[in-house]
Amino acid sequence: MDLSDATWTDVRDCEAELAVVPVGSTEQHGPHAPLGTDVVTAEAVADAGCERVDREVVRAPAIPVGVAEEHRQFPGTMWVSPDTFRSYVRESVESLFYHGFERVVLVNGHGGNVDALREVGARLTRDGDEGTYAVPFTWFEAVGDHSSDMGHGGPLETALLREVAPELVREDRVDEASADAADGWGEWVSYANLAYDSAEFSDNGVVGDPREGSAERGEELLELAAAALARLLEAIAERDVSRPERR
Amino acid sequence: MDLSDATWTDVRDCEAELAVVPVGSTEQHGPHAPLGTDVVTAEAVADAGCERVDREVVRAPAIPVGVAEEHRQFPGTMWVSPDTFRSYVRESVESLFYHGFERVVLVNGHGGNVDALREVGARLTRDGDEGTYAVPFTWFEAVGDHSSDMGHGGPLETALLREVAPELVREDRVDEASADAADGWGEWVSYANLAYDSAEFSDNGVVGDPREGSAERGEELLELAAAALARLLEAIAERDVSRPERR
Amino acid sequence: MDLSDATWTDVRDCEAELAVVPVGSTEQHGPHAPLGTDVVTAEAVADAGCERVDREVVRAPAIPVGVAEEHRQFPGTMWVSPDTFRSYVRESVESLFYHGFERVVLVNGHGGNVDALREVGARLTRDGDEGTYAVPFTWFEAVGDHSSDMGHGGPLETALLREVAPELVREDRVDEASADAADGWGEWVSYANLAYDSAEFSDNGVVGDPREGSAERGEELLELAAAALARLLEAIAERDVSRPERR
Amino acid sequence: MDLSDATWTDVRDCEAELAVVPVGSTEQHGPHAPLGTDVVTAEAVADAGCERVDREVVRAPAIPVGVAEEHRQFPGTMWVSPDTFRSYVRESVESLFYHGFERVVLVNGHGGNVDALREVGARLTRDGDEGTYAVPFTWFEAVGDHSSDMGHGGPLETALLREVAPELVREDRVDEASADAADGWGEWVSYANLAYDSAEFSDNGVVGDPREGSAERGEELLELAAAALARLLEAIAERDVSRPERR
Amino acid sequence: MDLSDATWTDVRDCEAELAVVPVGSTEQHGPHAPLGTDVVTAEAVADAGCERVDREVVRAPAIPVGVAEEHRQFPGTMWVSPDTFRSYVRESVESLFYHGFERVVLVNGHGGNVDALREVGARLTRDGDEGTYAVPFTWFEAVGDHSSDMGHGGPLETALLREVAPELVREDRVDEASADAADGWGEWVSYANLAYDSAEFSDNGVVGDPREGSAERGEELLELAAAALARLLEAIAERDVSRPERR
Amino acid sequence: MDLSDATWTDVRDCEAELAVVPVGSTEQHGPHAPLGTDVVTAEAVADAGCERVDREVVRAPAIPVGVAEEHRQFPGTMWVSPDTFRSYVRESVESLFYHGFERVVLVNGHGGNVDALREVGARLTRDGDEGTYAVPFTWFEAVGDHSSDMGHGGPLETALLREVAPELVREDRVDEASADAADGWGEWVSYANLAYDSAEFSDNGVVGDPREGSAERGEELLELAAAALARLLEAIAERDVSRPERR
Repeated sequence: MDLSDATWTDVRDCEAELAVVPVGSTEQHGPHAPLGTDVVTAEAVADAGCERVDREVVRAPAIPVGVAEEHRQFPGTMWVSPDTFRSYVRESVESLFYHGFERVVLVNGHGGNVDALREVGARLTRDGDEGTYAVPFTWFEAVGDHSSDMGHGGPLETALLREVAPELVREDRVDEASADAADGWGEWVSYANLAYDSAEFSDNGVVGDPREGSAERGEELLELAAAALARLLEAIAERDVSRPERR
Repeated sequence: MDLSDATWTDVRDCEAELAVVPVGSTEQHGPHAPLGTDVVTAEAVADAGCERVDREVVRAPAIPVGVAEEHRQFPGTMWVSPDTFRSYVRESVESLFYHGFERVVLVNGHGGNVDALREVGARLTRDGDEGTYAVPFTWFEAVGDHSSDMGHGGPLETALLREVAPELVREDRVDEASADAADGWGEWVSYANLAYDSAEFSDNGVVGDPREGSAERGEELLELAAAALARLLEAIAERDVSRPERR
Repeated sequence: MDLSDATWTDVRDCEAELAVVPVGSTEQHGPHAPLGTDVVTAEAVADAGCERVDREVVRAPAIPVGVAEEHRQFPGTMWVSPDTFRSYVRESVESLFYHGFERVVLVNGHGGNVDALREVGARLTRDGDEGTYAVPFTWFEAVGDHSSDMGHGGPLETALLREVAPELVREDRVDEASADAADGWGEWVSYANLAYDSAEFSDNGVVGDPREGSAERGEELLELAAAALARLLEAIAERDVSRPERR
Repeated sequence: MDLSDATWTDVRDCEAELAVVPVGSTEQHGPHAPLGTDVVTAEAVADAGCERVDREVVRAPAIPVGVAEEHRQFPGTMWVSPDTFRSYVRESVESLFYHGFERVVLVNGHGGNVDALREVGARLTRDGDEGTYAVPFTWFEAVGDHSSDMGHGGPLETALLREVAPELVREDRVDEASADAADGWGEWVSYANLAYDSAEFSDNGVVGDPREGSAERGEELLELAAAALARLLEAIAERDVSRPERR
Repeated sequence: MDLSDATWTDVRDCEAELAVVPVGSTEQHGPHAPLGTDVVTAEAVADAGCERVDREVVRAPAIPVGVAEEHRQFPGTMWVSPDTFRSYVRESVESLFYHGFERVVLVNGHGGNVDALREVGARLTRDGDEGTYAVPFTWFEAVGDHSSDMGHGGPLETALLREVAPELVREDRVDEASADAADGWGEWVSYANLAYDSAEFSDNGVVGDPREGSAERGEELLELAAAALARLLEAIAERDVSRPERR
Repeated sequence: MDLSDATWTDVRDCEAELAVVPVGSTEQHGPHAPLGTDVVTAEAVADAGCERVDREVVRAPAIPVGVAEEHRQFPGTMWVSPDTFRSYVRESVESLFYHGFERVVLVNGHGGNVDALREVGARLTRDGDEGTYAVPFTWFEAVGDHSSDMGHGGPLETALLREVAPELVREDRVDEASADAADGWGEWVSYANLAYDSAEFSDNGVVGDPREGSAERGEELLELAAAALARLLEAIAERDVSRPERR
């Protein structure tokens, strides 16, 4: 059930205990992919995952601005501080808990949100009433071997966009995007990433080769991510979420 | 320019100084209108207003969850605290300021956001670099005599939905919505509203008669609101936003 | 019972459940009216209102500094941030709740406090123990048709001062105050107020004509405001303040 | 110059760089002395001190609610958290700094405020523009040998009240107040005070014998405190408040 | 039991209800004494005190950075804000409460921490579950007549260092430290300390004469402080920590 | 230079621009390893790394309590909230920046601190004066192939303890520790870790087999980690830390 389209009486009459909240970001994705990429992809995976579950799942509206200061040198990138992001996500989910949607998956499309969402999930789970539970799911970590190809505006995101919103990919700029892309994320010395901003290691904001992200690959990614999300939803629907005992 | 669909290079190449940020809420709007009403209407007005301006205007993604605890007794209503809402809006706008979009209108679709947005606008304007400016615009306050008919899920919102998203109005529940609606917002004694929650004075969450909100009226509302927003955008584009001198 | 003058044993022995907290501001009121206007008027109305109620009401000391950054260009204006103001008022009222004064009216004398007090009242009412309740009352909104003449240091405030503290009105500067006054509050385009500071639209800080504020009018205003406050106190004394049920 | 009674034009025309802010508390002072004792005494000392200085000094309105949770078991006691108190005082003083009153004495009447005011003074001094300075002054620490007799509602406060507001002392309850008073403040073991609340060591909230607080003693206390405050004001008017150099 | 050296199974098997948390600071102590002085001394006193108690006491690791901005002009001084310090200490102690160590002494070695620790102790005691209790103990306030000789890097601290960590005292710089030392802490006018930073009144950061701090005196100080702490631990072990009743 | 042992004059006279701050945790490490494991190991690596660098490096005291709520079911575990931890670390480092130690490595020994330290490093680097820089380094991520054996109280930590503090390992409990240990960290479904607390997947708090952590392996780990840290220190000493340009 799409919460935005439903009425309160529809919500009252549904039996769902599960909810998903797409969490995105509005940030640069190179010269060929839109600033809204992480919203589009998070929504697509959330919807596809919910379809594959044989239970009612409430689907909240996507959170559009995330932890993306790392891309601020690129025009149009929006961001909030991690503190504000955590509060906004946490309180939004608490309002879902209030109505009995007590098992929530945060379907995330942006790497910069990962740490913050883990912290939010822990707090929602530990501090909520006994029975509440929230966990983040980042789609590009859940696509098997493909995951190692994740970059930024690179093969995976470009592929998924070509599958779910091809009109948003500037095909005529893909070669240029590829030519100036960085090979990997960050500047690493002794297993520490010395860079905090993508502008430190990528001229055009792209990491990885977007030419390796065909629509066919996008279809496969969507299938893999949706199946993974569906398994996760089943797992948390069945999960004993009571808090562990003290030793 | 729709920020979500644009690439960072598109944004770099545009000349805009103006931006609009639609601000909505996901909250009950009676048995006949969707929880996403305030997002849909804020976006529609924002887009229609920008179209009527002969300047480039950047259009940010809509903020979907607002100050709506007042509707929490109705299933599906989402909300964050005023503090978190203020921070989320403020920091989102500051990221627009960062890129040179220094004159911003917060196009609002929800009454519960009004006070918070005024506070945010003041802080953004006073605390920002000399030259930055932000002001809220609430569409249903800007539709002339119609404004006095505003309720909740009532004539104005139902009319505008019928114009911009008719598929979201449950026409078969409008009579019921009307029958149980409250006549006015709040419980007033000595010019003070004693009620804090809509459930204190409305059984089904509706205030005002949605039957009085035809699609024709919606068309007129959209025209009025869009024209008003366009005038506002022109005004702030030309405005001297330097801070006033001390006496 | 004036809390400041009472001893704790007096308070222990009284039966009051009602309390009023005058809330003012120390801010410019033109060349003819004192910075303390909003404290003086809030206290006068609070006291006159309590007198007209046939119940014991505890009267707390006035809060002297409010949300008045909008007047900062005028020397002597004091202010705190809205966040700090909300915390200070809220915690002060919580300490009254602690002693059983669980129904509280915030008697306000300053327009800039209105939004913040509504937010505080909601939080006190929703978050407190079942049975607690707080609501703001702004005297110049509760004087019938006079209310439309409210400005700043204008007819209403000058009138009330002449009634309750005539020695504080500089009669020899009233003509000058009037001559340089603004006609209305703010700079409006498309129903949005573009101005955040009074110095943007008033040279001397006055809005409205103080010459139209005679002592006789002040007497009437005090009577109207006091009667309104008394009705409000009676209403909340009888009010069922249990929280509404979920739908 | 009393800021509350002055107009902004009066303030504009004065030459003051010094300001005093009386800081009180509304809290139990035994069965014989009013809850407002700390406000009354702080104001009296502030006014008397300013009179003795041959410079213009701005006198702000008194802050009426302080850090007094320690008396919460006694009806009528009001308090805010130390965090909120610090913010309220700090921002109030910052608004005075804004107008050029850059050397400020916080004239304090309540022991529970002492630590918080020291912290506020440090922050105002260190964080403000070069040239700003604020320091707390607690009157009963500045009355020579008398200071060792300070208690709570005891000899010093009762004496000063009898001098400046005798009508507020319930003379017919002084014997009773004395009989049940504690000898000293706190419960001490190994130089640590084990008690956090006055109710832990005083049955009626009084510490020290109020019978030892005659009006004559009050007159002397006022003279001593006022003279001390005047010396302090002179000292900070002449003080080099530039920040110390790094070593 | 030293918590850092113990395993969780050791902790599970112990019967302690008492805990001590050494609280220090890393800050200048003159040219002859180390920046870690307040950690070393707090730990030494904590350990010596625990040894003298015939009960199991858990000893937490020392908190190394405190409220020491007052020494910031001297290289190497570390500090956090009072707010952060209070949160860090409070939450650390709450985690001890969680495991049943509900009576806690904060063994403090730094004057700048005193006010903040008192506030933390109050909050921990008032806000915790019925049965929890925390109180600060500052060693140099608990050494009888010696206490009046406390300065900074002066007789008491130098003496205690010579007793517990003589290798850290630069004996060849003690004469120099003494020569440039201030006689007393602060700059006092009318019983108010006008100075906020030690650099305002001490050239080399020392207050008091370190030559008067022999190892023999250090031995006596340690004995006195440890005995005082032991008495305090006994007292709070036996203390009725239920909250006082309302009047 | 060990900051705790140095005097301020020593610090003044040194030429260092580099600093390291060991960051640990006081938390369960199974029945065989001490609660202080993460402090001991972070300090050992920090010291060994500094020794291998041919530059002066300031070594701050270790931060002893971190983000460890995940182990709270095991007695003795201490923790603070992520917010408080971030503030404490950030402000501590800012005080080092103040003295010119503008390139800082946070040498971390606890997995639960990783996300928070990355956030702190970003904020310190972005918000500080041009020229400041801070980056976290977690030793067990920097030991080559060994890193994949990290657990909790498992092979790596046990090995390093046996090398640097063998007296703290309870050899007689290692078999028991091993027998009840979990194989891996967390409960994974669809690449999401469903568990928030170690008690959800480990009976005795151990993950991985401590028997595989010989002293010899510990020696190698220390060598690897120290060498990695030394390389990192060299790299940031030479690094251009100016902020990247806008696109």
